[in-house]
Amino acid sequence: MFEPWLIAPIFAVISILMAFYFYRYVDKQDSGTDRMKEIAGAIREGAMAFLNREYRTLAVFVAIVAVLLLLFIPSPIWATPEPLKNVATAIAYIFGSACSALAGVLGMNVATKANTRAAYAAREGLNRAFLIGFRGGAVMGLAVVGVGLLGISIVYWITRDPAAVLGFSFGASSLALFAKAGGGIYTKTADVSADLVGKVELGIPEDDPRNPAVIADNVGDNVGDVAGMGADLFDSYVASILAVMILGVALDFITKSTGLFIQIPLVFAGLGILASILGALTVRVGKKGSPGGALNAGTYVTCGVFAVLTLLASLYLKYDLRIWGAAIVGVVAGVIIGITSDYFTSEDKAPVQKTAEASKSGPAITIITGFSYGLRSILPPLIGIGIAAAIAYKLVEPLGQQYASAIPYAPLSFAVFGIAMAAVGMLSIVGLIVSSDAYGPIVDNSRSLAEQGNLGEEVIKVADELDAAGNTAKAITKGFAIAAAGLTVIALLAAFQEIVRDETGVVTSFNFMSPWVLAGSLIGVGMPALFSASVMLAVGRNATRMIDEIRRQFREIVGLREGKPGVKPDYVRCVDIAAKGALKELLPPSVIAIVVTLAVGFIGGVEAVAGYLVGNILSGLVLAFLMGNAGGLWDNAKKLIETGAFGGKGSDAHKAAVVGDTVGDPFKDTAGPSINTMITVMSLMSSLFAVLFVRFNLIGLLGIN
Amino acid sequence: MFEPWLIAPIFAVISILMAFYFYRYVDKQDSGTDRMKEIAGAIREGAMAFLNREYRTLAVFVAIVAVLLLLFIPSPIWATPEPLKNVATAIAYIFGSACSALAGVLGMNVATKANTRAAYAAREGLNRAFLIGFRGGAVMGLAVVGVGLLGISIVYWITRDPAAVLGFSFGASSLALFAKAGGGIYTKTADVSADLVGKVELGIPEDDPRNPAVIADNVGDNVGDVAGMGADLFDSYVASILAVMILGVALDFITKSTGLFIQIPLVFAGLGILASILGALTVRVGKKGSPGGALNAGTYVTCGVFAVLTLLASLYLKYDLRIWGAAIVGVVAGVIIGITSDYFTSEDKAPVQKTAEASKSGPAITIITGFSYGLRSILPPLIGIGIAAAIAYKLVEPLGQQYASAIPYAPLSFAVFGIAMAAVGMLSIVGLIVSSDAYGPIVDNSRSLAEQGNLGEEVIKVADELDAAGNTAKAITKGFAIAAAGLTVIALLAAFQEIVRDETGVVTSFNFMSPWVLAGSLIGVGMPALFSASVMLAVGRNATRMIDEIRRQFREIVGLREGKPGVKPDYVRCVDIAAKGALKELLPPSVIAIVVTLAVGFIGGVEAVAGYLVGNILSGLVLAFLMGNAGGLWDNAKKLIETGAFGGKGSDAHKAAVVGDTVGDPFKDTAGPSINTMITVMSLMSSLFAVLFVRFNLIGLLGIN
Repeated sequence: MFEPWLIAPIFAVISILMAFYFYRYVDKQDSGTDRMKEIAGAIREGAMAFLNREYRTLAVFVAIVAVLLLLFIPSPIWATPEPLKNVATAIAYIFGSACSALAGVLGMNVATKANTRAAYAAREGLNRAFLIGFRGGAVMGLAVVGVGLLGISIVYWITRDPAAVLGFSFGASSLALFAKAGGGIYTKTADVSADLVGKVELGIPEDDPRNPAVIADNVGDNVGDVAGMGADLFDSYVASILAVMILGVALDFITKSTGLFIQIPLVFAGLGILASILGALTVRVGKKGSPGGALNAGTYVTCGVFAVLTLLASLYLKYDLRIWGAAIVGVVAGVIIGITSDYFTSEDKAPVQKTAEASKSGPAITIITGFSYGLRSILPPLIGIGIAAAIAYKLVEPLGQQYASAIPYAPLSFAVFGIAMAAVGMLSIVGLIVSSDAYGPIVDNSRSLAEQGNLGEEVIKVADELDAAGNTAKAITKGFAIAAAGLTVIALLAAFQEIVRDETGVVTSFNFMSPWVLAGSLIGVGMPALFSASVMLAVGRNATRMIDEIRRQFREIVGLREGKPGVKPDYVRCVDIAAKGALKELLPPSVIAIVVTLAVGFIGGVEAVAGYLVGNILSGLVLAFLMGNAGGLWDNAKKLIETGAFGGKGSDAHKAAVVGDTVGDPFKDTAGPSINTMITVMSLMSSLFAVLFVRFNLIGLLGIN
Repeated sequence: MFEPWLIAPIFAVISILMAFYFYRYVDKQDSGTDRMKEIAGAIREGAMAFLNREYRTLAVFVAIVAVLLLLFIPSPIWATPEPLKNVATAIAYIFGSACSALAGVLGMNVATKANTRAAYAAREGLNRAFLIGFRGGAVMGLAVVGVGLLGISIVYWITRDPAAVLGFSFGASSLALFAKAGGGIYTKTADVSADLVGKVELGIPEDDPRNPAVIADNVGDNVGDVAGMGADLFDSYVASILAVMILGVALDFITKSTGLFIQIPLVFAGLGILASILGALTVRVGKKGSPGGALNAGTYVTCGVFAVLTLLASLYLKYDLRIWGAAIVGVVAGVIIGITSDYFTSEDKAPVQKTAEASKSGPAITIITGFSYGLRSILPPLIGIGIAAAIAYKLVEPLGQQYASAIPYAPLSFAVFGIAMAAVGMLSIVGLIVSSDAYGPIVDNSRSLAEQGNLGEEVIKVADELDAAGNTAKAITKGFAIAAAGLTVIALLAAFQEIVRDETGVVTSFNFMSPWVLAGSLIGVGMPALFSASVMLAVGRNATRMIDEIRRQFREIVGLREGKPGVKPDYVRCVDIAAKGALKELLPPSVIAIVVTLAVGFIGGVEAVAGYLVGNILSGLVLAFLMGNAGGLWDNAKKLIETGAFGGKGSDAHKAAVVGDTVGDPFKDTAGPSINTMITVMSLMSSLFAVLFVRFNLIGLLGIN
């Protein structure tokens, strides 16, 4: 018999095939002049080399963790009746990290081809160049959802056990954490250094080929924004589905059904992929269309198709429509939250304009103003997440009433299932979201290639237009990614509670008036800040090294500054500094996050962990929105001034705005987006270690729990 | 019979008398040359004029709120059997705001005398100048605790009802909120503008009399740092005592005692005042002593005396020693947290040194580095608060065991009483803390007066030394103030829960898995950010106006820039701009905070409010520590460079550090410290409106609560 959940692997495979189709489309385009090919080759080589070295470093980490999981998770292997579960967890973990890496490699591979092809196509105008850029991004988008859902399906098909999927998800997330941190440090080291020496000190334009860091900067766009963002949404996507599956176990137990609720998220995710493919196919710029409009239209089409498909499926498969409703609440909230991010980072709106205007009073006022708007941008999406969660909860809770007499916690189990479904709904359109997002760095590269390849003013103007749409898309998708991660980790909290109850019978309190929850939440609330600080300080340290090198080259290479023909800077050296620094610095912050989580659990037990996760989520959301939006708005304030406003390029206002942009770079591209992943990793890890935390903890040992 | 709690009013009166003694000591010192008298007179006049206008504006607000309280709180007056309670609440509210204002006026009054006298005394060296500065600060410190505790005692003596004390505390806090916001906007408008035009654009020294904003800057130190910080700690101090009193009601009910537990905080606070007075009297700089060492020694003496006195009192009055233990846990935590703040803001430690070094790479790296260390500084004090709260909880919880069979929630009631006692313990030494803190702006002014009064290099050097100690003290007391406010609002959470249970029988959930707690916490977590943004944007707007005015004066007043004898800038105009702007901008942020709290309560009911308060506390602590410490460390990084490090004054590193300092100014002196007060106001307001929130709320009306 055809089981409905098989929709998931089927559409996952179709998604991967579609990604190959788009890849072929991009690949067969003309890759431009020899000069462009040379530069694009250098970018590609640098990016692939970094990814290779990064994955090799991480392989060691993955191997160590896999052994630990094998030994201890879910129970110490020497004391468990089911040692196979340990084996499954460890293998699923390795598989998860491999899938995440694979999605990253696929995306990067095409991104480093699409950049030069889109640039070259821009000679003929906007339309085809846009399509190349977007389809390049779509390879990443479809690979992320395809590989993710196929991976989940395989693990589920073999084990039929969501606990194994938890291992898979943890693998994906922990790899994503390192990929984001490493990529984020790399990209901003290069970007900040190139800007500070090139634009601020020497006054040469962005992407000027004389700048020794220009190739490193382009490489960074790819390893940070393409591979990093892909890994981030890959991990949220997998985690959201996992959370519903774990909560589905409880509902299947309550309702005495076999796999019904576990499989709902797989069905929804499969249809979400179909919707994303259809959405991606409709994206193109018409005669008078704008690239930004095309990207938005694609999102709306995807949402609409998803709503209709899941409604039909729910009717056909006789799912209660309130579950469908919860998923749709998530979709709507995701879109609304994306739009508020757009408000705070768009050039047409007050925050960017006032920040640009404030730049007339110098860099300090630019920072204060932009930071303040960033602070202001936090509340609206949080209200969105809060209301969405409450609606989803209240919508699905009544389904549990009929079982409440037998199982008192049934309404709660249904309610949190509702929240998790909202997360799945929000993330169902992630295929398209990643596509739009990856489009950004591709066309950013294109612009740079057009400049370095001397394609002329007209082409650069087209590339600029493509790039501007990419920036807006990036702001929106970042808001979306944070919101989706937020809802996902709230669902993971419920999953954590469920696992603890299921395995040990202990009902974890999330009551803030419990001393351990309270203490845990106070510690947790400081963690995203600690993590952000570590990655940003790494950027600072690394950038200092690179700035010295760039200054040295301009000082020592005769004729470089004047742009004498034939004189070229030593690009490779800068690429190397960025890569070495990133590889050195990516481990400590993430390892600290992991170690503190274990410490909290083994000292304070599950209640401390519960509080700790809540604290992490709350302050993680605050910092992620703050940094993402403040960074985006400084970037666009600078761009606004560069269009001629408030004195234009070269004015004091412009210099101040460049300082703002430079501060915003690690905010929005290093620290901000890593926070999501960090929180997800902690949540998954807590679920994995939940049983151990219950059994072994210091306060229990001391008898004061 | 002598009731033990009468210790409170007795030592409160002694504290006020002691303040007058110190005031006389300061007043009889020589106030310096005619030029200094002139300048000091202008500062005094400006400060008093602002305070006058501010209080007049606030009187209208207080009157409106008093009428609302009279009508609605604790119950609508037309439907309550006890209308006198409404009258008492309203009068206590007015009394509380008047007391807060009084403490501010007293402190400001002496601060604007001590500044010039300390400067003039600095001609004879460090010792007496330090003593004048410190005793000037001690007038504020002792006035704060004296007036605060006397006010509480009077309200309690008349009504014997902690609910009336709640009105008093709300009055103190809401006035503090406006005073902090108004003072903070004023002081940073002047400071930022003076620095940006004077130091950055024109390269003239700090406090140069040619700068039209120099007097406004000095006025700002007084209205912002003296009156504002005083009001802040006044409000935490009163609120912490109130929280214990409210929780004491429950314990008196449980243990069937009359007023025993209500009165414990009054006894402890009374002894805390005695300890502070003794501590203050020992503060002096010895032959080889340093001002910083003297301030620290005073703190340690106060803590030690407090511990001994309260131990003796506990033994004599037969209080369980575990309650004493909880208070001491608070004291110890407060001191440790102060020390961690010191680490992150001290010139001798890595954070400041690395930030100063980073300034060599330009202002963007200064900001990124300093901000990162600010982020890192968040976790240590939070761990301190978390552990202190958990220890206090676990220490006192067992006292409730014997009543648990009759009243199941008895252990919890005792436990939260323990947390509240830790807050009282921490705040017991606040008399000395405020003294050290107010010393800072006084000697800051002295330094400025020494410069403007041409007292010569030697005297300026002494004044610099005094000032440096003031800056360190300020960083420590800020950390302390935030921690104390944090513990206080956690205690107020418990008080809120107690009031709701007592009045309506409803047990408020603080469970994060309740949809309304969850949604409330997500909204609450965004509020401190929204509030900070509003006050910082106000500074930005106001500073822009002032910068224009300063630039205009340098442009239009012939000979000003060159320092031609007899040519003076128009100081009054700048004082006026700062004052007008601050008065215009101080209401909206605070009113928004109040309105949102009411909206959450009347829409989501008490559970939403519970989550909302938790969210507020968690993110409030994060932002307050971040902003306070980042601001402090940028300030000191600049100072470090000014001592000659990394290129010294005038170097590019110095310019970058000045940008950091300017960004840090509104962080540490406007937004950061206002957050405490905002959270306290929200917590108190929630307690006041608790019963109304239970009876009238939208989700209840819709039947979905």
